[in-house]
Formats: sequence, C-alpha cells, structure tokens
Amino acid sequence: MTGLAVAALLAPPLAAADAPAGRTPSDIVEAAPAADWTRIAASDLVVMDLAPDARGRARRVVIQLIPAPFSQGWTGNIRKLVAARWFDGIAVVRVQDNYVVQWGDPDGETPGKAKVLPKGLQATTEAGYVASIDKAELTASADEANFAAAGLSGKGRSSLDHYAPLTTFQAGWPIGTSETAKWPVHCYGMVGVGRNLSPDTGTGAELYTVIGQAPRQLDRNIALVGRIISGMEHLSSLPRGTGPLGFYERAEERTPIVSVRMGNEVPGLPAYEYLSTDSASFAAYADKRANRKDDFYIQPAGGVDVCNVPVPIREAKR
Amino acid sequence: MTGLAVAALLAPPLAAADAPAGRTPSDIVEAAPAADWTRIAASDLVVMDLAPDARGRARRVVIQLIPAPFSQGWTGNIRKLVAARWFDGIAVVRVQDNYVVQWGDPDGETPGKAKVLPKGLQATTEAGYVASIDKAELTASADEANFAAAGLSGKGRSSLDHYAPLTTFQAGWPIGTSETAKWPVHCYGMVGVGRNLSPDTGTGAELYTVIGQAPRQLDRNIALVGRIISGMEHLSSLPRGTGPLGFYERAEERTPIVSVRMGNEVPGLPAYEYLSTDSASFAAYADKRANRKDDFYIQPAGGVDVCNVPVPIREAKR
Repeated sequence: MTGLAVAALLAPPLAAADAPAGRTPSDIVEAAPAADWTRIAASDLVVMDLAPDARGRARRVVIQLIPAPFSQGWTGNIRKLVAARWFDGIAVVRVQDNYVVQWGDPDGETPGKAKVLPKGLQATTEAGYVASIDKAELTASADEANFAAAGLSGKGRSSLDHYAPLTTFQAGWPIGTSETAKWPVHCYGMVGVGRNLSPDTGTGAELYTVIGQAPRQLDRNIALVGRIISGMEHLSSLPRGTGPLGFYERAEERTPIVSVRMGNEVPGLPAYEYLSTDSASFAAYADKRANRKDDFYIQPAGGVDVCNVPVPIREAKR
Repeated sequence: MTGLAVAALLAPPLAAADAPAGRTPSDIVEAAPAADWTRIAASDLVVMDLAPDARGRARRVVIQLIPAPFSQGWTGNIRKLVAARWFDGIAVVRVQDNYVVQWGDPDGETPGKAKVLPKGLQATTEAGYVASIDKAELTASADEANFAAAGLSGKGRSSLDHYAPLTTFQAGWPIGTSETAKWPVHCYGMVGVGRNLSPDTGTGAELYTVIGQAPRQLDRNIALVGRIISGMEHLSSLPRGTGPLGFYERAEERTPIVSVRMGNEVPGLPAYEYLSTDSASFAAYADKRANRKDDFYIQPAGGVDVCNVPVPIREAKR
C-alpha cells in the first residue's frame, strides 16, 4: 500500500529491465547474432512524410512493401504512383478507433476534382487477386518449422487459428496457409489497399493500416501490400474521425501527406533489418512470447497468436 | 482507374450502408429488440474526466466495472479510491503503442511525494488472485452456447484459442475457461490493474487499458477490473510516450485526470446498455462477425476470435 514504483509497473512482454539476461523476448532479440538479421533493401521501402505536428516536429512513416509472390500488381502500382509523385499532397482522411487509419485523395469521389491517376497502372481484378493467392507457393521452410516448434501453430496441433488452417511466418512475414494457398494476414501495422465493393480491388492509390485488434476477417478479401516498420505512432495516435466509418468531417482535420518517396531516393535514410524468421533466434523469441514465466508472469500462456509475435525490425546496427 | 469513391472504400465489418438490411453485424444489432439489451447500473460505472484537449473540448471516459465473481477485491478498492477522491489529480503517465495506456500517481515512486492511499483497501495477494479465478464458477449458459453455435469457440471444435481451452461470452463479458476455472480476457479496451513483480498484485490505484492487439499473455497474470464503454478514443489517440515502456519523459506530456466519480454521482450521465450475450441477437451478430459474405466480403473467414466480437454497448434508447 506504499508508494507505487510507477516505472516498473506492468512491465511489458518486450521489456523487463529487471529480469535476468536471456529471460525475456527482448533479451533474446538483443542477443541475436548479426547473421540472424536480414537487411531490407531501401528500394522496397516507401517513405511517407506527413506534415509536421502542431509543435513543428517531423512525422515520418516508413513502409516496407511485401515481396513476391504477394500482391505484386498493387505494389507495382504503388511504385508507379510514387514515381509520378501522385501521393504528394494527399491526406489521411479516416481514423476509425480499433480498426484502421486510411489515406488517399480527399477529393477522390468528387467528379472533376479527383486527382488523375498516372497511366500504366495495372488492372487488379478480383479474379486476379484470388488467383494471386492460389499461386503463392512459398515452400515450407525453416521459418514455418520454427513457429510450429514453439507450439504456436498447426503442426501437430489442429486449427489453432480461427482464420486459417495454419498460420506461420515466412521470409519475415506473418502468413496464413491452407493446403493450396498462402496469404499475408492483417496484423497491427500491416498496410492494405482500400477498395470499393467487389469486384473492385483497388489500385493502391488509397491505403490503410491496422491500428487495433487484427481484423483477420479482411484476410483474402483485401490485398495487403506491406507493413509499417517505423513511425507507426504518427498514424495510430491521430485523432479519431467523427463521421461515419471514422472519416473526418472537416477538411482541416485531415493530416496532409507532404511527400512519398522510395527509400533509395531519400538521402540519409537509415538501413533497416528484421530478425530472420528462419533463425534460431526467432524460434527462441517466438517461444518466449508464448511461454513466458518469470518474476512478472505467473501463468505462462502456452500459446500465442500470429499477430502477437511482431517480427522484430530495427535500424541496422552497422 | 477513375475517381475513387473515398467514403465507401474499405467498408468496415460494423457498417456498410449499402448492404441489404439484416446482412451486416450492425444491421443485426440495430434490429435487436429492446428485450435483448441489458441496462448497466450507473453504480457500476466509473466516470473519468480528463483535462480538456488543446481546443478546450471535454474528454470523458466511462468504465464499466466487471461483476462478481471476478476481481472483486480490486473493484472494491477502486470504489473506495473513488469515494476518497484519490484519483482526482492523477494523470495518464504511459502510452505504449500497440499495447497499453496507463494512469496513476506520477509521483508514486518518489518517497515522501507519493500520494497516500486511503485506509481500508483490501490486500490482494497473488494467492488470492489465482484463487479468485479458480473459484469463478459461472454456470454454462445460453451465452456460451450462442458463441459456440456460431462455430466460434471450443464446443465441437477443439482448442480454437491459443490462450484458453475455451473462450466464450458470459453475462456480457469475454471469458476464457478451462475445466476448472473462468477468467476475463485482455481484449481491446479492457481495463486492468498495474502491478509490480509477483507476488505484488496491485491495489487498483494504477490502471491501464489495452490499445492494440489483445495481449492475451497477460490473462491470469494481471487482474482485469472492467472495460471502457465510452470515450476510448480519448485514451487511444494520446501521443505515445518516448521513454522506456512508453512512459512520458516530461511531466507536461502527461494528461491530467481532473475527476473520477461513480456513475450514480454524475448528473445527466446517459444510461448505457449492452447486447445480452445470451440473446438470439447476439448469436446472430457473432455468427455474422465470423461468416460474412456480401458485396464487400468475398471470402468468409469461417471463424472469429473472442476479441474480434466486441460486445455492442450503447447509450440506452429510452
């Protein structure tokens, strides 16, 4: 009943300064050898600079585009839209609590005012979208075995995910799989393509990111094109919109997007790397996320869902 | 490739104005008869008024305390802390992205400066906490059958949750169960008790709410005492703290909490009601959350996790 040690209260899974070395997930990540990290090519990064905040502080968001075989029609379009500087001057138009932040052309539905899209964008039909999933054949890999070994997914335990027969990690990404298909899943910070009613699948000019409980019901319904690897807090902390679906009701509520560039166009951008999901370090990290028992955790969970094992991503150390 | 219909893009699960009546989860909620709603007693609400925002707008957060048999030692303490006006003048001290917002006494760890707790708080030991879970014997009810009937949980399908043998809803709350115990689970907006290392279990003077992917690993490790039923956006949109664990580094970054009162002490507070989880309407709503197929959703998920079925709560219509 005496003074509360505020700084130590509710030590989170990813940081408990007082736990012995090797005991926490963050300890495992910190101790991972350089060989267990994979560098992300700057040409696969999209750097989105929002207008500075009310105090004049810069707000930079860095997105990593998802690699083949996923969503390549849309990521190709995004590269063209960046090249055409189409994204410069659009805005964050929607923030719906526990769901998504969305950005696009605020005048997109106003005939005559809508920003003209560049020529050469790839048409992405619903049929094409579903086919792209069916064709996604990443081979079973050490990543998958690692996640399964930690008792975290379907191998040897059936149906431990509501939304996919098996969830796993492959090439650094959270993936849902069935016997015939693989697809990226809607975890916190994943970036997807806004679209209208089916069969529209969107172009990639309107994007959103997840800011709440993973809306996994969107898996296989909307194309995911990447994830936010830096600056997520600049989007997740924006004021919620008060209109239907969290759209802002007044133009001045929107956050302007000043410029969007590919990472290799941005001087001084740090290099980023992720903890390789086929590494022993990742297996140990995932296992610790599922089975933590220490001075804080009394009751280990014994399992963990795919969106509760965020892939560690950091500025490269050298 | 023409102008984008921004307002209709990415129609969320809970609102699709263009879908036929009865087709969406929100349609089902809207159509639920009055008898399917349960009024929440004002005496079970905690009304927390934050300092107005930068534009002078009020920021009110309403918390519903969890009913027996859960966490009654802590909710009893919270009632005593409110009665003593102990919470008045504390602050939001921590905002960690995709994890929690936490409020308490900013000087809690400064000897001599820490706010003195009122007498008569109940000691809540680790042993007592675990025991309180084991003793929680809500009988199997229509709520449980409803969630199971929708194919959403363990009945007839084994282990469809990473963190509990069975998840369900009971008396309006998301609940994890085993053969011998039941416990509330850490979904978005749930409110829990900050604590130090075990065997400390916290008093209830330091509280947090979930603002990201459900940190279910905290289930059975930290006492949950309620959930936020109104004003969540005032907490989830706060700037993230830049110190370790998301604590604010400077006092002026904290959001002051001006007053905390029980609902029955607040003149003009609306009455609130939740969709009874043992109602046919809730069963239909949960089923639709799991199996949506319409003009937007091409591929029904076929399942849903317990934290992706937010219990509908609204101001009472009469």
